[in-house]
Amino acid sequence: MRLRNKPEAPTKIASYPQYIPETPEDWKGKWQSRFKNDNPIHIEVGTGKGRFIYEMAKLHPEINYIGIEIQMSVIVTALDKLIENELPNLQLLQVNGGELTQYFAENEINQVYLNFSDPWPKKKHEKRRLTYQSFLSVYEEILVPKGEIHFKTDNQGLFEYSLASFSQYGMILKQVWLHLHESDFEGNVMTEYEEKFSNKGNRIYRVEAQFKDKTATGN
Amino acid sequence: MRLRNKPEAPTKIASYPQYIPETPEDWKGKWQSRFKNDNPIHIEVGTGKGRFIYEMAKLHPEINYIGIEIQMSVIVTALDKLIENELPNLQLLQVNGGELTQYFAENEINQVYLNFSDPWPKKKHEKRRLTYQSFLSVYEEILVPKGEIHFKTDNQGLFEYSLASFSQYGMILKQVWLHLHESDFEGNVMTEYEEKFSNKGNRIYRVEAQFKDKTATGN
Repeated sequence: MRLRNKPEAPTKIASYPQYIPETPEDWKGKWQSRFKNDNPIHIEVGTGKGRFIYEMAKLHPEINYIGIEIQMSVIVTALDKLIENELPNLQLLQVNGGELTQYFAENEINQVYLNFSDPWPKKKHEKRRLTYQSFLSVYEEILVPKGEIHFKTDNQGLFEYSLASFSQYGMILKQVWLHLHESDFEGNVMTEYEEKFSNKGNRIYRVEAQFKDKTATGN
Repeated sequence: MRLRNKPEAPTKIASYPQYIPETPEDWKGKWQSRFKNDNPIHIEVGTGKGRFIYEMAKLHPEINYIGIEIQMSVIVTALDKLIENELPNLQLLQVNGGELTQYFAENEINQVYLNFSDPWPKKKHEKRRLTYQSFLSVYEEILVPKGEIHFKTDNQGLFEYSLASFSQYGMILKQVWLHLHESDFEGNVMTEYEEKFSNKGNRIYRVEAQFKDKTATGN
């Protein structure tokens, strides 16, 4: 993502602890109490400017959402949406996706969204891809048993890589879409990138992948 | 595949038992002795007019190939290639892909190729797709432990279905190609359909999927 320097971002983020908690590690295992309900929690890792998670939160008040983004200059745009129009079921988290076990307890999350993640096309950067094995093990730890990752991208190489990575980790591919916008998939909420790239004529790929029941033994 | 009636096909097939065995069930568990060597055996299920398997057999004399096709009026074209230019490492088999356990013993086959299989797009015909679960269990039985299926098609719906079907059967996706002809995949041998459809501008999809070690217990 092209980043503009936004010197006001840190101050602004610090001014809205009700939307972006200042010490998120304090909420580990207690996120439902922060939302003041016991609804399931879905997170988006790499939430960018937040259009997807914000629209999802509006559409599904029965689910709690947390948008996670490390870049202050980007997440501040998601924060602006919340400042303008508060949603009780949406929180933001400005942390690193690889460190989620510091902020979420085992089984605390019900679903993970990954949308238009950075493809890191060079092989030497494989470990930075959000669908690399080490990230999958982080998601698995914080997800409920048989939790799912819903992933979309327009990047062919990243999608090829991710299908194999999910499978080799032991996840089950529940369903695959090779041209989402020409499919009969209902209820798609577009991200900023998705609108831009599909307008250029790019295909959007999507997959729902499920972890095995980690509590089960053997096969 | 569009079929032309070829009234001479049955007679011709019966005239060349050295290429298409008349009683293939007699060779169950003994195919290497038919090839007079102990090289690995690769089969193509739905071999059509045989261009792929014939070219593969020419390129890889160290592997034994068997092209399997139920339609007499189609396999007769593959037979013509063998009549014109015999290959010691290629045999044809005019049988149904769902009945392969009648003709091959457990672990007798080292690899399965599926190329441009009939997509059977209607949900009610799902069971006829060569990547449906019941076919996978047939392939698994005759394949060595950790045997692989190498599958390509230009049909988006069949490919989406097959990725999920392989995964849900418990197979591992080793590698996925979402645009084979624009990839760096080497040694691709085209089928008749592949040439025709890629010339039309269709993408060719490919996947290498591996069965788990059926001899192992537990995970």
